[in-house]
Amino acid sequence: MTIYEIITKKKHNVELSTAEINWVVEGYTLGKIPDYQMSALLMAVCFNSLSDRETVDLTMAMARSGDMLKPDTGGFNVDKHSTGGVGDKTTLIVAPIVASCGVFVPKMSGRGLGHTGGTIDKLESIPGFNTALSYEKFLEIVRTAGLAVAGQTGSLVPADKKIYALRNATATVDSIPLICSSIMSKKLATGADGIILDVKVGSGAFMKIAADAEKLAEQMVRVGKLAGRKVTAVLTDMDKPLGRTVGNSLEVIEAIEALKGKAPADLMEVSLTLAAEMIFTAGLGDESACKKMAEEAVTSGTALKKLRQMIELQGGNPEVTEDYSLFEKSKRQKEIFAAEDGYICGISCEETGMTSLKLGAGRETKESDVDPTAGIVFQKTVGDRVQKGEIVAVLHTSTDCDIDEIAEEFSNVFRYGSEKDCPPKKNIIKIIKGY
Amino acid sequence: MTIYEIITKKKHNVELSTAEINWVVEGYTLGKIPDYQMSALLMAVCFNSLSDRETVDLTMAMARSGDMLKPDTGGFNVDKHSTGGVGDKTTLIVAPIVASCGVFVPKMSGRGLGHTGGTIDKLESIPGFNTALSYEKFLEIVRTAGLAVAGQTGSLVPADKKIYALRNATATVDSIPLICSSIMSKKLATGADGIILDVKVGSGAFMKIAADAEKLAEQMVRVGKLAGRKVTAVLTDMDKPLGRTVGNSLEVIEAIEALKGKAPADLMEVSLTLAAEMIFTAGLGDESACKKMAEEAVTSGTALKKLRQMIELQGGNPEVTEDYSLFEKSKRQKEIFAAEDGYICGISCEETGMTSLKLGAGRETKESDVDPTAGIVFQKTVGDRVQKGEIVAVLHTSTDCDIDEIAEEFSNVFRYGSEKDCPPKKNIIKIIKGY
Repeated sequence: MTIYEIITKKKHNVELSTAEINWVVEGYTLGKIPDYQMSALLMAVCFNSLSDRETVDLTMAMARSGDMLKPDTGGFNVDKHSTGGVGDKTTLIVAPIVASCGVFVPKMSGRGLGHTGGTIDKLESIPGFNTALSYEKFLEIVRTAGLAVAGQTGSLVPADKKIYALRNATATVDSIPLICSSIMSKKLATGADGIILDVKVGSGAFMKIAADAEKLAEQMVRVGKLAGRKVTAVLTDMDKPLGRTVGNSLEVIEAIEALKGKAPADLMEVSLTLAAEMIFTAGLGDESACKKMAEEAVTSGTALKKLRQMIELQGGNPEVTEDYSLFEKSKRQKEIFAAEDGYICGISCEETGMTSLKLGAGRETKESDVDPTAGIVFQKTVGDRVQKGEIVAVLHTSTDCDIDEIAEEFSNVFRYGSEKDCPPKKNIIKIIKGY
Repeated sequence: MTIYEIITKKKHNVELSTAEINWVVEGYTLGKIPDYQMSALLMAVCFNSLSDRETVDLTMAMARSGDMLKPDTGGFNVDKHSTGGVGDKTTLIVAPIVASCGVFVPKMSGRGLGHTGGTIDKLESIPGFNTALSYEKFLEIVRTAGLAVAGQTGSLVPADKKIYALRNATATVDSIPLICSSIMSKKLATGADGIILDVKVGSGAFMKIAADAEKLAEQMVRVGKLAGRKVTAVLTDMDKPLGRTVGNSLEVIEAIEALKGKAPADLMEVSLTLAAEMIFTAGLGDESACKKMAEEAVTSGTALKKLRQMIELQGGNPEVTEDYSLFEKSKRQKEIFAAEDGYICGISCEETGMTSLKLGAGRETKESDVDPTAGIVFQKTVGDRVQKGEIVAVLHTSTDCDIDEIAEEFSNVFRYGSEKDCPPKKNIIKIIKGY
């Protein structure tokens, strides 16, 4: 077996064997196959794709490249993954809801690059909150509270780390089987019994087109099924930022509000749907019963209590849920005013994300620090009627960025029109179940 | 301009600009673009190809990556290139013929890998022959004798060296625009006024299918024309080894025999056609006149005299043309006998080449030495009637290879049949002129 032969096969659209895929993943992870051969293979995959069987093999080989965790919680473990969007704080909302219904949520999360930090960075805006837990400590908290959110420990999916970095440098990111294997290898390695995938669709998502998102969702569900896991993909709208906030502490506060039943409708609907699907995978009832359990976890306050319990067990101050002044305050704010009379018909996700990054909420390079206070609060959102000069958003930052210039550019984020230009959109596009 | 954007464009089948192609070639040659990004781009080119304009730009950018020679011989300079085949010793025959007709042949040649050495290695089997000439000395010999054959001097097309090595490792060799740019960049950089390309077609050639060979030939001719050179491509058959010998000194002896008018018909026809086209590019007459000049150079013995003159000027013993015992003798020989009564209907080029390599005639790695005595002499060839047990070939070697085992495998090289299974094939398939 040589990498040259394997590249040639894939280039000529010949299916690779399981042994060949295992050999490539192992060889590349161990540094025996050089980057320049792997990138040629990845480009050939972008053109000729992978069969379902090859995708499953690739995903499994990647998952097995490092530790395969088996979170010993004594119950049903459920994990959630989002393909990424602007203002996506649903993990902070669904994890407490699901845990309060008796399903275990051992959630490992990354930091990553982007317009805001990852879930880990968001939680670290809570004074004292510690995400750097040993795996034993992490599991102990999950057993006690039903949930914990921590950074990745140990050697999880080293193959994905290496392959992803190479794809990122060689324009080989946008291949559905490669995206599928990257996401699912991590989910399989963390050992959850049930996996809920929030596949975002729209201008602010990686998948701009519903058909592509559906294809990816179907492939991930299929891979999960073949790997013996219960997987559900929920396709959700990402044509505008989710909820009203983008940032780190700003999103934590909005998540707390959601657990008090006071979040915007889009965020509430997406969160409750994801939570219900997570509960459903655990077999706690039919779909409507699970939805009801999720809703009651909010209205009864048990979900909020769960969040407080997790914050406390992870070293944070649980009082933040009642007193938002305990969060660090942004040093500077800038109001944004409506440019026209009329209706807000669109909020550009891409430009919102870029603004958030410039304000300091995200990371441009791995080494950057995240400003926990930075971000955007939308006072008005898509479908709202506004009068020229009315406040539509407030920018927050504690960095020394040029907030005036950022504010000027940010004005272009809004698209105005008449009421008929803003037809309501569905938040939940489709649900695909693999079991 | 970033390499990421350029890979993305080519991946999405968008034409690259001249500036982008220049930037990539320069950046890669200087080591600013890493191998792993270049190999991804090359693979995208294999899938989406290059337009004629892009191919010309790539070829020119590669040619300009090193020295651009202008051989100052005072006359018309013609160069010849073969895409490579088994038993191809035509350069040794056509260069003296053409030079004896008054056209200058400043021929730079490589060593290369393969079943035999390159033209350089073949000539070095002549006692004393020196191919390591300074460019000044090389030109001086060309001015005196009309021809010289030397190894490449200076920094010729470093971009091609680097790109070719990468293509060879990443299964991105078989792209017509990439093959075209590799061949033509070298030909343009050596500065010939006329270029004759011997494009081999068949099982023993790089291009197995006539349509592909024709496409490559047309592209090379077009690129040459746009670069202001007179280019002719001759498509020749390579379904069986050319002539009767494969090896280094063995091929030199066969070439000398050809210059005495005693070569096999296929070798003679291909050589005279190539020589005539080379003379024609220099404008010395119409095609039939040029063919006649080439034939007369052989029958009159002037071409052989030219070869002797070149050998002498390059430090070799010209007496080899009259006394073949001056060549080093192979230490061991092994006769191969016909396995059946009947006609030889085919001789596998691939297996012949492999046998030649095993006998020591070629190089497996750049560091290997070539055995000048090693190779194969075919006593019988395609179309010949044979009786079981008759000698069909003799293997030669001076290395300590397992000649008995090689001989056993070599028996499979011959395909036997009845007379009607061996329809005669054309040696010259097509001639494509770019001027």
